[in-house]
Amino acid sequence: MADKPSIPKGTRDFSPLEMTRRNHIFDTIRSIFRTYGYLPIETPAMENLTSLMGKYGDEGDKLLFKVLNSGDFKGKLSEKELTGLTAGKLGALISEKGLRYDLTVPFARYVVQHRSEISFPFKRYQIQPVWRADRPQRGRYREFYQCDVDVIGTNSLLNEFELVRIMDEVFRSLGLKVRIRMNNRKVLAGVAEVIGEPGRMIDITVAIDKLEKMGLEKVMLELEQKGVGSGALAKLEPVLKMKGTGDEKLAFLEAYLETSLIGMEGLTEVRTVFSYLESAPLAAAVEFDMTLARGLNYYTGAIFEVKSEEVKIGSICGGGRYDDLTGIFGLEGVSGVGVSFGADRIYDVLEQLDRFPKRGEMDTLLLFANYGNVEIRHVFPFLDLFRKNGIASELYPDAAKMNKQLKYANNRNIPYVVLIGEQEIEDKMVALKDMKTGQIKRLTPDQFVKAVLDGIQDRHLNKKDLIL
Amino acid sequence: MADKPSIPKGTRDFSPLEMTRRNHIFDTIRSIFRTYGYLPIETPAMENLTSLMGKYGDEGDKLLFKVLNSGDFKGKLSEKELTGLTAGKLGALISEKGLRYDLTVPFARYVVQHRSEISFPFKRYQIQPVWRADRPQRGRYREFYQCDVDVIGTNSLLNEFELVRIMDEVFRSLGLKVRIRMNNRKVLAGVAEVIGEPGRMIDITVAIDKLEKMGLEKVMLELEQKGVGSGALAKLEPVLKMKGTGDEKLAFLEAYLETSLIGMEGLTEVRTVFSYLESAPLAAAVEFDMTLARGLNYYTGAIFEVKSEEVKIGSICGGGRYDDLTGIFGLEGVSGVGVSFGADRIYDVLEQLDRFPKRGEMDTLLLFANYGNVEIRHVFPFLDLFRKNGIASELYPDAAKMNKQLKYANNRNIPYVVLIGEQEIEDKMVALKDMKTGQIKRLTPDQFVKAVLDGIQDRHLNKKDLIL
Repeated sequence: MADKPSIPKGTRDFSPLEMTRRNHIFDTIRSIFRTYGYLPIETPAMENLTSLMGKYGDEGDKLLFKVLNSGDFKGKLSEKELTGLTAGKLGALISEKGLRYDLTVPFARYVVQHRSEISFPFKRYQIQPVWRADRPQRGRYREFYQCDVDVIGTNSLLNEFELVRIMDEVFRSLGLKVRIRMNNRKVLAGVAEVIGEPGRMIDITVAIDKLEKMGLEKVMLELEQKGVGSGALAKLEPVLKMKGTGDEKLAFLEAYLETSLIGMEGLTEVRTVFSYLESAPLAAAVEFDMTLARGLNYYTGAIFEVKSEEVKIGSICGGGRYDDLTGIFGLEGVSGVGVSFGADRIYDVLEQLDRFPKRGEMDTLLLFANYGNVEIRHVFPFLDLFRKNGIASELYPDAAKMNKQLKYANNRNIPYVVLIGEQEIEDKMVALKDMKTGQIKRLTPDQFVKAVLDGIQDRHLNKKDLIL
Repeated sequence: MADKPSIPKGTRDFSPLEMTRRNHIFDTIRSIFRTYGYLPIETPAMENLTSLMGKYGDEGDKLLFKVLNSGDFKGKLSEKELTGLTAGKLGALISEKGLRYDLTVPFARYVVQHRSEISFPFKRYQIQPVWRADRPQRGRYREFYQCDVDVIGTNSLLNEFELVRIMDEVFRSLGLKVRIRMNNRKVLAGVAEVIGEPGRMIDITVAIDKLEKMGLEKVMLELEQKGVGSGALAKLEPVLKMKGTGDEKLAFLEAYLETSLIGMEGLTEVRTVFSYLESAPLAAAVEFDMTLARGLNYYTGAIFEVKSEEVKIGSICGGGRYDDLTGIFGLEGVSGVGVSFGADRIYDVLEQLDRFPKRGEMDTLLLFANYGNVEIRHVFPFLDLFRKNGIASELYPDAAKMNKQLKYANNRNIPYVVLIGEQEIEDKMVALKDMKTGQIKRLTPDQFVKAVLDGIQDRHLNKKDLIL
């Protein structure tokens, strides 16, 4: 026998149970995106390397999976050229395409390429795998899904509001308790202005980001080493020491940032979003958090991050506003805002908390036992009827020993086995075996059909399988 | 401004309309697969080249997209090694992974790799893109989706029966008139036996396959050139000339194949599947067709092919039984049967016939106009209510000129715009603009909510948008 086959490291097969669970996450996310008017797009797995290179920093470039040109690339290279090449240069000569690294750059490319067909504001979502040649480790894969939702071509803070609502609804629907933290890059810029170091917004933000981990002293030391003057540091200290509720912090900053136009603008944005949020109760805790930083080079306004309140696993959703996403492809001045849901981490949280639905709506409810070629003729009409009503039902394909058929039902987690043998046909009855209790009930065909069809609504509500 | 960005040739972006339409096909297929108890799996985009190479013939090997090893592959090669290399050998040294070429080989690999976790018979479906470095042309892409459904680990003809039912239901649900042709490889083997050329099953089948295109004379000539004796050809002629209905052909073959065990077995299989099919009426025409050949090296029993009766476009679905799919990965004797739906062609047929649903269930039904920060507060409760009921509704994010907002609704194909301005708020009324007729109706909030919620059921049935 050949070697047992395998798959590339860092990649995964998704078996039916994992698929059903992952689809539960995707379907939940997708249906909520749709009620807010977001539309689906998909982009190709391969992008031109010119679209990808230089977009993720030097480190990112190295993590791109490159696809070999098809055809005789070697013919184009002389011996001399070949022998002098480094890996990187050789790669550049023989490869012009790469697998997408995220959904953001392809989305920017898409918007620029299709801008004449798009009616702005453009609300899109995209759920597709991405590939990164990262070193695989627990929870980090070389192929994983991203679920991005963005609206582009509008400055309105209603979008930030609706994204918070979307995050809230998604996690509520998934049955997860979360905390949504919100910050605004303009507030951070304002702090840099107020302390007299307007060019050091990034340094200051990075420092604030480390506060929780490193403590105040070390952070101050690091800023000093980076050349932030002692006067500026003294002015910064009250911000780093800021305590209290979100409201109290906002009140403090209101006074602190008084002299900074951009800082006050940031505060107004934060307050506006919170005022919209008062219109309806949220399941999640939403708070203003000055220490939230998130990939700042990229974002220009609101920043979001969501964490589970029940499982320690890092951020499970995040995003923010960017004023110039499409600039990298030459289309300037198009502002957008979006968030990305971390499907793998959400999966892990749901699994740890045992919060996946016990049985998928689409899972097989009934297995009809196969007693042979005569008996199965009596099964066909039931199969037809139930399947037409969207109820997944199976007929065991072979007239195998009953033990084998019941074992299949058990392995497949099918809750009921229907027994229609010689005796039942003669009696015009149906025998229904509950696989959990082992009990067998004898029903008339009408009773049987009614029990299955009446149960539909309850199964959808995850209440009961059959009403008997 | 930078160059307008582009995507690799032979690949496509899917915009919202195309996505919604493609999802209509996928969702239809998926929900029918599920009612028959088929389960979803997914495999990684990249497979080890050892799993892919040699599985699709020499031509197929050339069409594989190979992924460059990450890291310093060049360091491992001496100058001498490099200079002597052909493209193929260089590729082999610097690449160990490839993009999947179809879903069949990854499925076989999956079954062998996971055989200890799988409970057989294993019914799986898989809907994922595949990649081929084919020369792109109209209707042929380098990235396209396949939708495969297979059951493995059972010889029962009930599977063939259910696959025909699945094909019938899928195309009926999509509103397409199709013809399903069925043949059996054992019948073809029987014919080869009867004419005394049992080793020439493939040649004879290829010849039969060409009958329609080339005509009888040329086919006979070709077989003669291939060395089929004149006695054998004389015996074959009546088969090639066979006319009449499927039943008449079967009756003819019943006599013709009498002396061939395998031929008679094939006929029995065909008759059995047809006898099962009598249990319920089909929408599609299903017929036995001796001239159906389909990649014979692979199949060992039933063969299926579906064509549209309304659009000339080639096969839109096909498949068959194979006795040794997993043998390529060392697991012998596992029989299976499956079919694959051609999503791209089905899309083209639906588009040509204008049979896509006019509006997706999930498409935005209502756009609330934005009259400013005071007025939108009156919109929030409606948005909440409708979205909670699964009705996609949007609030235009900016208090832009009404013309711009209406234009957005038009471009997005949103059928109703809700106007809640100063006057409406004072009057406690809602103005509803029908974008098709241009008519505006004034309703009380209760009437408005009732009209939207009552319309849900009818919208699902594609009847009406709102009941007013």
